Amino acid sequence: MQGAKSVQELLNSDFETLMVVGTPDFLHTLPIENKCEWIEANEKELADLSEFKTNDSMLAVARIKPNLSFKTQAEDFTLVLDDIRDPGNLGTIIRTADWYGIHHIIASPETADFYNPKVISATMGSFTRVFIYYDELLHLLSQTRQKVYGAYLDGKNVHTEKFSTGGMILIGNESRGISPQFEKYVTDKITIPRFGQAESLNAAIATAIICDNVRRNHI
Amino acid sequence: MQGAKSVQELLNSDFETLMVVGTPDFLHTLPIENKCEWIEANEKELADLSEFKTNDSMLAVARIKPNLSFKTQAEDFTLVLDDIRDPGNLGTIIRTADWYGIHHIIASPETADFYNPKVISATMGSFTRVFIYYDELLHLLSQTRQKVYGAYLDGKNVHTEKFSTGGMILIGNESRGISPQFEKYVTDKITIPRFGQAESLNAAIATAIICDNVRRNHI
Repeated sequence: MQGAKSVQELLNSDFETLMVVGTPDFLHTLPIENKCEWIEANEKELADLSEFKTNDSMLAVARIKPNLSFKTQAEDFTLVLDDIRDPGNLGTIIRTADWYGIHHIIASPETADFYNPKVISATMGSFTRVFIYYDELLHLLSQTRQKVYGAYLDGKNVHTEKFSTGGMILIGNESRGISPQFEKYVTDKITIPRFGQAESLNAAIATAIICDNVRRNHI
Repeated sequence: MQGAKSVQELLNSDFETLMVVGTPDFLHTLPIENKCEWIEANEKELADLSEFKTNDSMLAVARIKPNLSFKTQAEDFTLVLDDIRDPGNLGTIIRTADWYGIHHIIASPETADFYNPKVISATMGSFTRVFIYYDELLHLLSQTRQKVYGAYLDGKNVHTEKFSTGGMILIGNESRGISPQFEKYVTDKITIPRFGQAESLNAAIATAIICDNVRRNHI
C-alpha cells in the first residue's frame, strides 16, 4: 500500500505489516515501536516502486487477511455490494461506511478486489476499520432474517422512511442496478428523491445518501 | 465525447455537434433530424479513436461553449468549487447537481477542466444540463449578497440546519478543504455528522450529502 496516510493507518491497525519503504523524513513520523522491516529510499526510488505517480513519501507491504465468514450484525447495518466493479467506487464506499460507523461490508465475488491499490488509496485509511467479506449474495439474502433495503425508482422516500436499527443495505451495480434475482429478497424498497433530471446517481453517492438517511434521527 | 449515453445526451442538448462517429447499430438509434456529419466505423476503429478502452459504440465532436460570466441565481443554489482537482470527482459532482436540480456551478481556475474526457464520462450525460463557469472565487465570494454555506468540522449540523431557499454552497479541495482566505466569506458553517472514525469524506460525497440535506423538507 502506498502513500503516507494509508501507511500510517496500516501501522495503527491489526494488519501484519511486513515492510515499510519511505523517505527518511516520513519514516521519522512513524511509531518507533513497530517491528517490521524499514527501508529508507529517496523520492525517485519510491516513484519507481509505486503504482501511482504521486507517491512521494512511503509504501508498505502487509499480509492480506483471510476472507472470513460473515456473521449477522444484530442491531447494526451491513452494506451488501452487488457487483461494484469500479475500484474508486469501492474505496469511496468503504471510506463512507467508516464515516457512518458501518463496519461490515459483504461483496459479491465480482466486486472489485479490496486489495486493489486504487481501492486502498480511495479508502483514505478506512480499509483498516471496515471488514469486507466476499461471498455469493443469493445464499446470504435468502437466509437473513434482517430487513433488506434496496434502492429502486418506485420505493419509499428515504427522507421520510423510518429505518429500523439494523439491516442490510443492498447496493446495485454501477450500470444495471440490483440484480433481478435479488429483488424478491428486498423487504423494503427505498428511493432517493430526485429534484432535477439526471437518470441516476453514482453508486458510491447513492450509498452515502442512504447511509446519511439511515443514521439521522427521524424526529 | 465518447460512449452512447454521452452522445445521445449531447444530441438532445444545445451544444453544437460537429461530427458523430459510431457503429451502424448505434447510429440508427439516434434522432435522424440531426444535421452534423455522420461517419460509420467498426468497433476496432472506434477503440483506436477513443481515449477509453471500453468505448464500443460511438463518439462525437462538439463545439466547446465559451466561458460565460455567472449571474447570481436568486432563489436557487449554486455550487462553488474551490480547486476540485480530480476529474472523476468533478464529473460526479455535476451528475449529482443535475439530480438535485442545481443548474449552476462556479469553479476556481485550478478546478479540473469540464471538457476533460474523464469529467464528461463521469457526468453520465448531465454535462448538457449543468452550466459551469470558471472564475476567481475571491471576487465572487466577497461581492455576493447570498448566503455562503461551507463545510467545516465545527459548523451547524446539516441534519437540523434550516437552509434558506437559495445561496452558494462552497466545496473545498480534496486534500486541504476550503481555502483559508475564503473562510471570512462563509456566512453559515455547516457540518456533516460523523458516526464512525473516517477523518473526512470524499469531496463529491460531501457535496451530495449537503445537496440532499439542502433539498429535503425540514418539517
